[in-house]
Amino acid sequence: MAAPGGGRGPRTRTDLLRLLRDEGATSRVALGERLDLPRAKLTAEIARLVDEGLVAVGGPAASRGGRRSTLVHLADDLRVIGVDVGVTSITVAVTDGRCEVLASQSEDCAVRLGPVEVLRRVADLAERVLEKAPGRLIGAGIGLPGPVSFRDGMPVAPPIMPGWDRYPVRDDLAGRWGCPVTVDNDVNVMALGERHSGVARSLDDLILVKVGTGIGCGIVVGGRVYRGAAGTAGDIGHIRLDDFGPACACGELGCLEAYFGGAALARDALTLARSGRSPMLAATLAEKGSLTAEDVGVAASSGDFAAANLIREGGRRLGQVVASLVSFLNPGMVVIGGGVSRLGHSLLAEVRSAVYRRSLPLATGNLPIVLSELGELSGVIGAAWSATDRAFDIA
Amino acid sequence: MAAPGGGRGPRTRTDLLRLLRDEGATSRVALGERLDLPRAKLTAEIARLVDEGLVAVGGPAASRGGRRSTLVHLADDLRVIGVDVGVTSITVAVTDGRCEVLASQSEDCAVRLGPVEVLRRVADLAERVLEKAPGRLIGAGIGLPGPVSFRDGMPVAPPIMPGWDRYPVRDDLAGRWGCPVTVDNDVNVMALGERHSGVARSLDDLILVKVGTGIGCGIVVGGRVYRGAAGTAGDIGHIRLDDFGPACACGELGCLEAYFGGAALARDALTLARSGRSPMLAATLAEKGSLTAEDVGVAASSGDFAAANLIREGGRRLGQVVASLVSFLNPGMVVIGGGVSRLGHSLLAEVRSAVYRRSLPLATGNLPIVLSELGELSGVIGAAWSATDRAFDIA
Repeated sequence: MAAPGGGRGPRTRTDLLRLLRDEGATSRVALGERLDLPRAKLTAEIARLVDEGLVAVGGPAASRGGRRSTLVHLADDLRVIGVDVGVTSITVAVTDGRCEVLASQSEDCAVRLGPVEVLRRVADLAERVLEKAPGRLIGAGIGLPGPVSFRDGMPVAPPIMPGWDRYPVRDDLAGRWGCPVTVDNDVNVMALGERHSGVARSLDDLILVKVGTGIGCGIVVGGRVYRGAAGTAGDIGHIRLDDFGPACACGELGCLEAYFGGAALARDALTLARSGRSPMLAATLAEKGSLTAEDVGVAASSGDFAAANLIREGGRRLGQVVASLVSFLNPGMVVIGGGVSRLGHSLLAEVRSAVYRRSLPLATGNLPIVLSELGELSGVIGAAWSATDRAFDIA
Repeated sequence: MAAPGGGRGPRTRTDLLRLLRDEGATSRVALGERLDLPRAKLTAEIARLVDEGLVAVGGPAASRGGRRSTLVHLADDLRVIGVDVGVTSITVAVTDGRCEVLASQSEDCAVRLGPVEVLRRVADLAERVLEKAPGRLIGAGIGLPGPVSFRDGMPVAPPIMPGWDRYPVRDDLAGRWGCPVTVDNDVNVMALGERHSGVARSLDDLILVKVGTGIGCGIVVGGRVYRGAAGTAGDIGHIRLDDFGPACACGELGCLEAYFGGAALARDALTLARSGRSPMLAATLAEKGSLTAEDVGVAASSGDFAAANLIREGGRRLGQVVASLVSFLNPGMVVIGGGVSRLGHSLLAEVRSAVYRRSLPLATGNLPIVLSELGELSGVIGAAWSATDRAFDIA
């Protein structure tokens, strides 16, 4: 049974703050109607939030025929930090209370340096970004490239993050910043970001498939991240496509990630370059000394047949998995994001063709399959959104 | 944003009725605490429900040191009809307000006879079952073997139900019975049934895989059926395993159902019998003139190698799909139900081995994969549960 909420202290407060975050400045009258609150109670609650500096009252709202109503909005000086830790880089954004990015910055940083070094650099970077958009810090959120216990605020047995297992990321950052901190998986915060202000704006059911160094999937059901019983929901990179396929970083064979993650693409690109089947990748290798997934994209879009074929084959395999997910979950939208998604429309075409061909017509009839709109910012925006959710709950 | 509920009329009423359904007789004091209601309001609400005959007040509850509190429970004479329409049979149960089955009956009835004939027979059967457990009918629920628009209360383009497309099942039955009616997909009500009083009791996240004439999957997320954007979530029977596989009833090739649905098993059994590879199936065919999935189960458990092999191969294919779902959704439990699940433990062993081998260790660590506990009754109990959900909402 759903816990009966509403009508009493803390929930009203949270509902009010979330509504102002999601919908912006709202008139007192509209707030009273939306929250189904008597006027006196609403007035008292707003006064308390104004006192605490979380909310401000602006000019009169447009009249609706009766008395004029004043606009209520989140205080302008609220600040939230959103952090996205990737395998090879970190991005930090500072947003206002509505999760609009005011300033952001990225730098190279290998996650395998371990939590002490990486979080120190995150804190340094955040300090510099906060200088560009100073204000009152109310919360912070961070996305990590591995499985996370959301409740405990720490990574759990992450395969590509040596030294991070059960490191208290939340407590470390909360100690530095003196505000509540949420820790989540990178794909979950990306999905939230696209839902809050990206291509999936206000959609309640969607999946975000990230194809980067690894492959993962964020699932939003009924407007909330679905994490599963043990917090591993969406871990599609290790769905096995072939019992005798290529070796995967996880120790198994034939995982999706072993065919089409960033590392797999780089590996295949090297083979193509060395075997002479891709003159363009061979030239890039000679010039740079190494090859990445992005080089495959560049070669493919310049007409290199072997490189284009790699993307086609990988896209077909990814599409096969996404088709199953679509049949199973019938989402309202599929968003493709992450570094490899910069391979762009040829990848999208393969995934679309697999899904539209293999999934049920009813499930795909109105299903958009699109590229992420926020690109690198989806993670930090989603992390900030998750942070406000927490901050407004306990504010 | 979640709509703020509670504290006001209709939600309190619904919450109270649902709590009495899910937890049985409860003391006034406990109700007040659970629903966070002031005493006067609770007393008024209970009095109103007693007046309407929905609720009764029993003897004093055990004292907790202070004043003695009286027990409140759903009225004993409340009745709910649960219907499960299969491809070849119908089952009707009559339950009390807590969805406990008081009487039930099944009979053969082919869904392809069309809605007019089938619903007439459902109504006849319900009349006979109601005679065994008379009372005050407050709601009815029905599960159908095809895609359903839950909102509109009708099937939508069901592949194996000729004549049913957009037939107003809800309005037809509501007219006959004079109570609110819910219409849902058969696997969704089965999942609700197992969650309400079967093997998945009180679990919030589970999937129920039905292997019968067709193959489908009910998804429960956060305690509610997840239907997807177009209502087709869980339609895993048509996930394509092989672009060049056997023809499926849906018109495509290589669907899971074309390998391991009841019809596919019967087809393969016929081949084995005729080719002489299965002496036992050949004998059954000679005796009965036809073969079913159940005959395969009987032959396999009597040591027929070819029949056992059919189950092993089918179980492996089913397991491959379930493994993907487990990696993706990380459910708290996988329940296998439906007619073919009577193949029992050899099927279960194959599915388990595929899932435990192919899915992430974190996702399978505490994952029970079990057979349905309620068998044929899971559908009717779930349908009744769904019916009370609706009935208590609008009561």
